[in-house]
Amino acid sequence: MSPTELFRQLTSAPAHRRALGRAITLVESTRPEDLGPAAELIALAEQYSPPKPTFRLGVSGTPGVGKSTFIETFGQELVRRGHRLAVLAIDPTSSLSGGSILGDKTRMELLTRLPEVYIRPSPNAGELGGVGPASRAAVLLCEAAGYDYIIVETVGVGQAEWQVHGMTDAFLLLAQPASGDDLQGIKRGILELADHLVVNKSDSLPKQSRLAAAELRRGLHLAPPRPDGWTVEVATASALTGAGVGEVADRMALYRDQQGAYIRQRRSEQRVMWLHEQLRRELLRRLSGYLAAAGLDNDQLRARLDEHITIPATAAVILADFQQNSTQ
Amino acid sequence: MSPTELFRQLTSAPAHRRALGRAITLVESTRPEDLGPAAELIALAEQYSPPKPTFRLGVSGTPGVGKSTFIETFGQELVRRGHRLAVLAIDPTSSLSGGSILGDKTRMELLTRLPEVYIRPSPNAGELGGVGPASRAAVLLCEAAGYDYIIVETVGVGQAEWQVHGMTDAFLLLAQPASGDDLQGIKRGILELADHLVVNKSDSLPKQSRLAAAELRRGLHLAPPRPDGWTVEVATASALTGAGVGEVADRMALYRDQQGAYIRQRRSEQRVMWLHEQLRRELLRRLSGYLAAAGLDNDQLRARLDEHITIPATAAVILADFQQNSTQ
Repeated sequence: MSPTELFRQLTSAPAHRRALGRAITLVESTRPEDLGPAAELIALAEQYSPPKPTFRLGVSGTPGVGKSTFIETFGQELVRRGHRLAVLAIDPTSSLSGGSILGDKTRMELLTRLPEVYIRPSPNAGELGGVGPASRAAVLLCEAAGYDYIIVETVGVGQAEWQVHGMTDAFLLLAQPASGDDLQGIKRGILELADHLVVNKSDSLPKQSRLAAAELRRGLHLAPPRPDGWTVEVATASALTGAGVGEVADRMALYRDQQGAYIRQRRSEQRVMWLHEQLRRELLRRLSGYLAAAGLDNDQLRARLDEHITIPATAAVILADFQQNSTQ
Repeated sequence: MSPTELFRQLTSAPAHRRALGRAITLVESTRPEDLGPAAELIALAEQYSPPKPTFRLGVSGTPGVGKSTFIETFGQELVRRGHRLAVLAIDPTSSLSGGSILGDKTRMELLTRLPEVYIRPSPNAGELGGVGPASRAAVLLCEAAGYDYIIVETVGVGQAEWQVHGMTDAFLLLAQPASGDDLQGIKRGILELADHLVVNKSDSLPKQSRLAAAELRRGLHLAPPRPDGWTVEVATASALTGAGVGEVADRMALYRDQQGAYIRQRRSEQRVMWLHEQLRRELLRRLSGYLAAAGLDNDQLRARLDEHITIPATAAVILADFQQNSTQ
């Protein structure tokens, strides 16, 4: 199926779920023959204006904080409020270990059954940390398919939070009902990414979750004031009982209403950031293509190293040739 | 001081410690004006043959396993055996958080005082994950400065182990005296990198460390057989009492004696790997230089995005110009 036809299917009402799945698989693919069609599809998605304005929410938290359970409850609340919801997961470990930490479990069973909800559990591992750009494209595709509320979920293990922050309008950080050293599990700098903080498990550990919330509030006071004037609040909630989850949805709706100008600016800056990313990735892809076309496999590179002695000198000679001879 | 003079100082016997420190700082620097001198210095180090053959040992393990204490004890043993030892630390978190997880504590106090030992606690955070190439250069500089046993230490959090494996002759993995899920802290694939495994803290937790050793041995049986015929052993040791540490030194000496051909081949393959790394980094550096020279700051890039609509299309136009107009 051509990218144009696939895109037409996914933006037309009936049966777009399957087309959406195929489209996301295509943009996640690292097979050389898929790169062209994927780029075409992304171009279509970038030029498309969804009929309803969309909202992109990043959700993160340390392993075990209850992200899936929270999204299961929170997502149902969103559907009750009339949203069509897509949930995308970014798994930062998949490109390292070849495995998946998110895909292992049965997750969000109730949410999965709702017709208004599309869940994409875990992306394929991409080369060169390709999860980022593919996930950004997946967000656009979900929006084109008529989902107006997009949750991008990731585990809090470092780099992924930045990627998710870089493709969403708001970033919600889930925290454990713990204190002191355990809260330090939230890495430096990540707290400042958050537009909203929620201490989960307020049902089973009410006292600890209040303490954790108080500690997080103190931590937030140390952060520099926000240029957009938004006040980051720390809420407590229980994904299990649903207590506090409606308030989180209210708070995000308020953010969306009040921070329209900031969100537009954020999206505009994100596009520039992803352009930088695209420039780097595309350039490295061309380098790989050049090395293959020039027959510079590892044996040949070893011979070049013997000839030019040092690594920088060898690299300089190869790059000079690359820049003269690489086309497209 | 010129790179040539700095290199002369660091390879001459007296006071080379200070010259070595300056040299490593230079290769770790990301300041544009340091890149040329750093490349010159690396070229000198790459062409230099140390008077004694050297041995490069990577040491890793999950946080809390006692790496510093182990290296403190193991290092003293190496000095007793006549080695001159350099210890380099790679901190994979520094480029993410701006902080350092290794530099916080006072570490290896006894080792620091020995004249035969050079310790470089933690590298500066480099752009683009620059810790890797700078650390590889630091290994070469330590060898040029007359250190014949180089330990490259890192915390086991994922990517850093691969970098360390890619710049050493042998990889020693320290494990906790734990079992089951706790041993899973050792990430998939990392176990197979190890040439030697040591369960630490055999003094305080003798039973658990024996159990952990047994479990790790079973894990190793599942790994594919090694092409070089080396048998990976699992030892127990106590960095605190020194029990078993001499045996680890024996084992590494045996590896070094028996696996000479494999180590030479490994170093040769590593050079090709670092050439790939250098090609990628140098190309991205040129791209940054081009964007700056062409006045393509974020505002200009945003204007280009408005003009060409999609990110891939904009990137293609910019890269075409880059490849035609970028020189060095």
